[in-house]
Amino acid sequence: MVQKMKLAYIGGGSTAWAWKLMSDLACDETISGEVLLYDIDMEAAKRNEKIGNLSGKGRFVYKAVPTLPEALKGADFVIISILPGGLDCMESDVHYPEKYGIYQSVGDTTGPGGIVRAIRTIPMYVEFAQAIEKYAPNAWVINYTNPMSMCTDTLYRVFPKIKAFGCCHEVFGTQRLLASMLKEVKGLENVQRNEIKVNVKGINHFTWIDSAFYKDIDLLPLYEQFAVKHYEGIDNNDFDEDDSCRMYSFKHRIKFDLFLRYHKIAAAGDRHLAEFCPGQWYLDNPDVVKQWGFGLTTVPARREEYQERYENAMAVINGTREFHPEESGEEGVHQMKALMGMGDLVTNVNLPNQGQVSDLPLGRIVETNAHFTSGKITPVIAGELGGVPHAMTIRVSDNFDQVVTSCLKDDLSGCLSAFQNDQLVTRISHGQAEEMFMAMLKNTEAYLGSYKKIW
Amino acid sequence: MVQKMKLAYIGGGSTAWAWKLMSDLACDETISGEVLLYDIDMEAAKRNEKIGNLSGKGRFVYKAVPTLPEALKGADFVIISILPGGLDCMESDVHYPEKYGIYQSVGDTTGPGGIVRAIRTIPMYVEFAQAIEKYAPNAWVINYTNPMSMCTDTLYRVFPKIKAFGCCHEVFGTQRLLASMLKEVKGLENVQRNEIKVNVKGINHFTWIDSAFYKDIDLLPLYEQFAVKHYEGIDNNDFDEDDSCRMYSFKHRIKFDLFLRYHKIAAAGDRHLAEFCPGQWYLDNPDVVKQWGFGLTTVPARREEYQERYENAMAVINGTREFHPEESGEEGVHQMKALMGMGDLVTNVNLPNQGQVSDLPLGRIVETNAHFTSGKITPVIAGELGGVPHAMTIRVSDNFDQVVTSCLKDDLSGCLSAFQNDQLVTRISHGQAEEMFMAMLKNTEAYLGSYKKIW
Amino acid sequence: MVQKMKLAYIGGGSTAWAWKLMSDLACDETISGEVLLYDIDMEAAKRNEKIGNLSGKGRFVYKAVPTLPEALKGADFVIISILPGGLDCMESDVHYPEKYGIYQSVGDTTGPGGIVRAIRTIPMYVEFAQAIEKYAPNAWVINYTNPMSMCTDTLYRVFPKIKAFGCCHEVFGTQRLLASMLKEVKGLENVQRNEIKVNVKGINHFTWIDSAFYKDIDLLPLYEQFAVKHYEGIDNNDFDEDDSCRMYSFKHRIKFDLFLRYHKIAAAGDRHLAEFCPGQWYLDNPDVVKQWGFGLTTVPARREEYQERYENAMAVINGTREFHPEESGEEGVHQMKALMGMGDLVTNVNLPNQGQVSDLPLGRIVETNAHFTSGKITPVIAGELGGVPHAMTIRVSDNFDQVVTSCLKDDLSGCLSAFQNDQLVTRISHGQAEEMFMAMLKNTEAYLGSYKKIW
Amino acid sequence: MVQKMKLAYIGGGSTAWAWKLMSDLACDETISGEVLLYDIDMEAAKRNEKIGNLSGKGRFVYKAVPTLPEALKGADFVIISILPGGLDCMESDVHYPEKYGIYQSVGDTTGPGGIVRAIRTIPMYVEFAQAIEKYAPNAWVINYTNPMSMCTDTLYRVFPKIKAFGCCHEVFGTQRLLASMLKEVKGLENVQRNEIKVNVKGINHFTWIDSAFYKDIDLLPLYEQFAVKHYEGIDNNDFDEDDSCRMYSFKHRIKFDLFLRYHKIAAAGDRHLAEFCPGQWYLDNPDVVKQWGFGLTTVPARREEYQERYENAMAVINGTREFHPEESGEEGVHQMKALMGMGDLVTNVNLPNQGQVSDLPLGRIVETNAHFTSGKITPVIAGELGGVPHAMTIRVSDNFDQVVTSCLKDDLSGCLSAFQNDQLVTRISHGQAEEMFMAMLKNTEAYLGSYKKIW
Repeated sequence: MVQKMKLAYIGGGSTAWAWKLMSDLACDETISGEVLLYDIDMEAAKRNEKIGNLSGKGRFVYKAVPTLPEALKGADFVIISILPGGLDCMESDVHYPEKYGIYQSVGDTTGPGGIVRAIRTIPMYVEFAQAIEKYAPNAWVINYTNPMSMCTDTLYRVFPKIKAFGCCHEVFGTQRLLASMLKEVKGLENVQRNEIKVNVKGINHFTWIDSAFYKDIDLLPLYEQFAVKHYEGIDNNDFDEDDSCRMYSFKHRIKFDLFLRYHKIAAAGDRHLAEFCPGQWYLDNPDVVKQWGFGLTTVPARREEYQERYENAMAVINGTREFHPEESGEEGVHQMKALMGMGDLVTNVNLPNQGQVSDLPLGRIVETNAHFTSGKITPVIAGELGGVPHAMTIRVSDNFDQVVTSCLKDDLSGCLSAFQNDQLVTRISHGQAEEMFMAMLKNTEAYLGSYKKIW
Repeated sequence: MVQKMKLAYIGGGSTAWAWKLMSDLACDETISGEVLLYDIDMEAAKRNEKIGNLSGKGRFVYKAVPTLPEALKGADFVIISILPGGLDCMESDVHYPEKYGIYQSVGDTTGPGGIVRAIRTIPMYVEFAQAIEKYAPNAWVINYTNPMSMCTDTLYRVFPKIKAFGCCHEVFGTQRLLASMLKEVKGLENVQRNEIKVNVKGINHFTWIDSAFYKDIDLLPLYEQFAVKHYEGIDNNDFDEDDSCRMYSFKHRIKFDLFLRYHKIAAAGDRHLAEFCPGQWYLDNPDVVKQWGFGLTTVPARREEYQERYENAMAVINGTREFHPEESGEEGVHQMKALMGMGDLVTNVNLPNQGQVSDLPLGRIVETNAHFTSGKITPVIAGELGGVPHAMTIRVSDNFDQVVTSCLKDDLSGCLSAFQNDQLVTRISHGQAEEMFMAMLKNTEAYLGSYKKIW
Repeated sequence: MVQKMKLAYIGGGSTAWAWKLMSDLACDETISGEVLLYDIDMEAAKRNEKIGNLSGKGRFVYKAVPTLPEALKGADFVIISILPGGLDCMESDVHYPEKYGIYQSVGDTTGPGGIVRAIRTIPMYVEFAQAIEKYAPNAWVINYTNPMSMCTDTLYRVFPKIKAFGCCHEVFGTQRLLASMLKEVKGLENVQRNEIKVNVKGINHFTWIDSAFYKDIDLLPLYEQFAVKHYEGIDNNDFDEDDSCRMYSFKHRIKFDLFLRYHKIAAAGDRHLAEFCPGQWYLDNPDVVKQWGFGLTTVPARREEYQERYENAMAVINGTREFHPEESGEEGVHQMKALMGMGDLVTNVNLPNQGQVSDLPLGRIVETNAHFTSGKITPVIAGELGGVPHAMTIRVSDNFDQVVTSCLKDDLSGCLSAFQNDQLVTRISHGQAEEMFMAMLKNTEAYLGSYKKIW
Repeated sequence: MVQKMKLAYIGGGSTAWAWKLMSDLACDETISGEVLLYDIDMEAAKRNEKIGNLSGKGRFVYKAVPTLPEALKGADFVIISILPGGLDCMESDVHYPEKYGIYQSVGDTTGPGGIVRAIRTIPMYVEFAQAIEKYAPNAWVINYTNPMSMCTDTLYRVFPKIKAFGCCHEVFGTQRLLASMLKEVKGLENVQRNEIKVNVKGINHFTWIDSAFYKDIDLLPLYEQFAVKHYEGIDNNDFDEDDSCRMYSFKHRIKFDLFLRYHKIAAAGDRHLAEFCPGQWYLDNPDVVKQWGFGLTTVPARREEYQERYENAMAVINGTREFHPEESGEEGVHQMKALMGMGDLVTNVNLPNQGQVSDLPLGRIVETNAHFTSGKITPVIAGELGGVPHAMTIRVSDNFDQVVTSCLKDDLSGCLSAFQNDQLVTRISHGQAEEMFMAMLKNTEAYLGSYKKIW
């Protein structure tokens, strides 16, 4: 028996997450249904409609639709993965702060780039939440867009009964690193990443692991030796890294350094971790970055990547290239199946804190494991962060909270306060930070129309 | 590859839980090892040694040992299932209160019988916890003994780092009832009880389900109709009921009645549920009990049951009867395997509250689902009880807390306060309750030697 | 300098609290202003207008107004003291349950009478809260009406920013008892009740004292001996008891009995305490009541009392009797002065729980000390109830919460669930309780017009 | 009737706090007793013995004693005010970090100086707590020593039942500033600082006021205008500033700047506030400091101040100068009197968090108002910090917590982690911070003998 399902995809012209989803839907023989693609770039959605229908083997039908309500009505699942503001905005987010000596390795989650990105994304998410409340109040909503915590938080603030969660593969890389460690130190081949059982907690892109087991092997003592041995860094070529990191190398040096300081495994990749720490630690200047062995995002490289994907899409559509669906390694389809009763799953996910992280405030979007089962996602009790990891994490979570609250109140001065308190921004004065903030808003003002008054 | 494990069984002469365990170990081809049986009745342990070795197919070796340290040293798992004080004590627990018009359907968990049973059991558990701390501090400890909450609480109070949890099959009956409902109303055959996914919370033998799904079917709306339709009661013969209920019938009338009042499914069997409610509701007198369609435990019947099991054991040992191990339906072996990394499991379990039940105090022993995986049990966030179910549950939990605290301080007057506030006891005056309490202590004084002074 | 203030009095025809207020305002030379009296019985308000203006010495002007908005506009303080439904309703509340063997000593706070009284009062309080939000959102609101907790809770649920608190003199009697103890055991004369410093916590009419000092004398050890010595009861004639108790004697036997059980001083009078305990303890039947030495409210006596007050009022108005204002011993005027910056005050008050009682849920109306100062009331951290006092208190608080929630949702079946779980009602079956509930609603239906459907 | 009391003074040779206490005791005619002075500098204690006995008018007898037990036995109150390590240590604490471009305005509370001071003070406080537990377990213990939070925390960790609280006058300056504002904007003369009623919350030297009233005047709207008007700074000569600030001027510019950003009044003086903020904001370099209008502590100036006090003491002892006791404006004596039942007091104090600050962890030392009364100090519910003030405060509180925990475990590497995460230290790299930390330990090693191993 094949399960029928209806999906709405907001950002349906996406060439990254949408293609992974199409692949995964194509590869799974137990499900079928309809995928409605909505995108402000209708042409992009139409391209994906074509590719999807080519790949879907008839089990899934793809259709680009011009409005959000058309996409949402009757949906069982809503997927949101958008690029808020395009690459020109991203150029400002990532590179403008360099004028002030502030370097960012990703620039979409925290730091000055993450906050300004949030400011333009939150009004879009207000619209999404309102439309979901109206047209698909019972649908499960999966968010992939960054800044993850603030996007997901906006959904819950606008429509508190929304059944939304945020998905991110960042922890998988650490599971793969631990599997690779098992190969090196125990000679164990072919350990799968989801056989590495971790207790993970924190906020998206800054989660911490305090328990990791493979079968009956406690991995933390092994990891301590591994971190010492490889403190100068290891090549991550063996690991099938995630999208945001693929084009840049990193060597796990920051992960090892943080472990030796705090005795917990920081679960994200080095490029994300660096941005959550005081700027002078790992991002002080390009030389320090180089010394820690990771790369900074450059938007020109991002532009090339996008162009390449566009050409790929056209080639598939024109029949000059075949689309071979392969399992992406992402968990979205497994999660949806679990919620339909097709097999339980315990994995990490972003949800409002109901106590799963005991030392972060209730209601904050946190990332921990959760149990996905028929009709329900239940987070597990992950415990406390404690110590310096707590201090670093709650500072960022407080800033996120203030940004979302301020945006929803149309109060950009509140966002500025958070911006000035950001761990990468405190290296400059209040006055310089304000000047930088205003310039970054100016650079991206095309997307700020919903704010009545730029402070 | 067969996993080797070492088990210590406290109460190793048991004819109920021990036999189920022996059966389950015999049936599982993936594990092997050694089981050390410790019991104050060494002869009983030796009988089980013989039966175990007959049934174990060589994969498991059973050995009765005369002391607790011998059993515990090197154990990976410690199982505790004892009958504290024997059937004479149980006779007093269950039947003595009838002189005061207080009827109990089980008498081992709450009510006057449950409290007096706790008073004699807690000193035994103090010894177990001390011995585990000394001889097997890293072992997983599984408790089956009632009163579950107070026994498990004692373990944690004496040795706070103990890796203990309490196991009970009481929720399984409700899963089976829901499966049977699916057959009746949807014609679905062969739904397995663990395909019914429930969110369960409360305290042992008084847990509440506020979400139940089979695949994508929400079971609560169906259950409401089912409860109305069968309000006069249904036969539970179809359901493979648990040990404590087997000899007595019940008809789910109380379960249906509570659902129609509070809109949550009470997950235990009627005979347990009745005891957690004000005594006048379902246990007012034998006529009322009859009208609600359930039976009261009688200790004479228990005695017959024990005698029958003893004869069975002798027959197996003497070779006049064969022991055919069959899977018991219990989850102990699955749980142990999950903890060794042999397959994750999400199931209900008794653990100290770390926030899994949001409206019961932290630290109290509560029952919710938990994720069993390599090296770790993590409870899930089950949410709040709310309303009258909360009021009824916290009253009992407060009483349990006071009993354990008082016993550990050698203060039986504190136990009396809880006893007088018990939901079955408040129908009589303070003075009568005190008289009854003193008589019940007197009846069981052989097991109260560790208290310096009977109040 | 005399402070000018504007008061609105809802229930301004009151002959109890209103007269005390008029006396206290007359006696205080530092304040002046205007008191607007609103009452559904306009004639009663007019009588108080006359009496007030006779007594006010020109400093306070009293005026009866026909509508709530006229009373509220511009008010600095709003006082609410009403008799919801009159004496006929009270007759049903207090005496109807006697048909089922349920005796009540007051019948206005908890128990079947308290709950039915709440059901008809809550809709009135919804109106008050809405009018206050509209016409006097910044006023301080003082509630004197019972059921105190549920009335105050309704105000906060309807208008969460209301600056309301509930006032009750019940604790004063215990302070006077402790002063009297000091006289007896230490020979200390003239100790004033507010020199007895107590830490009080719980819910109105069921608060507990775990710390009591007079200067540097710790009173709890003395009280223990005092309770033992006077366990058979003492006459309370020496104490100027509160209104609701005046006509009936009590002997502090229950207070002593509870202390010897739980080692905390129950701060209300025996007649209130009895109703919060399981009914069989102190209210089992009239003989038991007699044995505990307290009296049951009878509504005929209440009628006489009201008639007497009415005649008093007429005599004052007709000039056949003089009104001699004397300080009432109540704290309302002191509290208002403190809030206007005329002298700080720490006293017990009913407010939503923000953590002042650590083991009752946040948001529940609780009674503890609070600091009254210029522009602000701040509750103090009173700590936990613990043990059996916690179990008894939270049960009632849960029931109150369910009654208010249900009334606001127009769901009288939810009220019935709480009613059936009431500590005085659980002595009868669900069915009998439902029958009694329906009859009590019927008896008072003239005040239940806002409920769409009597369940 | 004069109340007799016995005080133990640890640090009894102090020339600052001890003299204030002697003055206040001399000025109060209602109390009498004995003060035992203990100091590692016995000569200094003897000088104070002489001065005290000259000033005490016979009501108080002062006696220097050579050991801690002699001082503590029988004490009703224990006062602790020590200078841990003397001025040479302070020189390193305050000035050594300047080599790394880190400037400190006080250097005794947080920042690199505060942390290193804590490391050498905590072992002394371990001894004090153990001695108090042994010799004066029921005494009230008043701490004046900085770092206040970590000293007080150490007392509670070592002896959890200690009745200790930390006293600081820092908030008084803000009350005086508000009184001065009332003079300026309302023409109100002679408003006393304790007539300004504030709700204060946070940690010592970094508390926030969200409610301030004088009689019925809400001061926050006035303060907003006042802060704007005086944004360039005002002279604080009018205000009788506290000891640690006396020798240096400041202009409230930081206080105004923080208010305009966060809409809460930061209650400490600018010199303390600056150190709790990211170092680049107000302490970036001496020019920035100058621009913000406050002075940096210099230890040479401290040395002069100490020498001057020493000469004063000798002059009094030699009779060449008279000691005129005057009320110091401190509250220590009022607090002690309140605890003896000689008049209630509500004032700010440092205590473990029992919920008085809702968004800081339970158990942390926090500063809020508390009610001092006969035999009891009860903190009030001060509410949440919220927003950026919360983010800044919890970071420091987390660091304090880690320092105390690490010192008690003899783990200086844990202290280093907190040190590297300090808001003034994050401007330098991990490596530089470690080098600085080790040098500062070396500079003060004479006081680090109780640590087994300098990391």
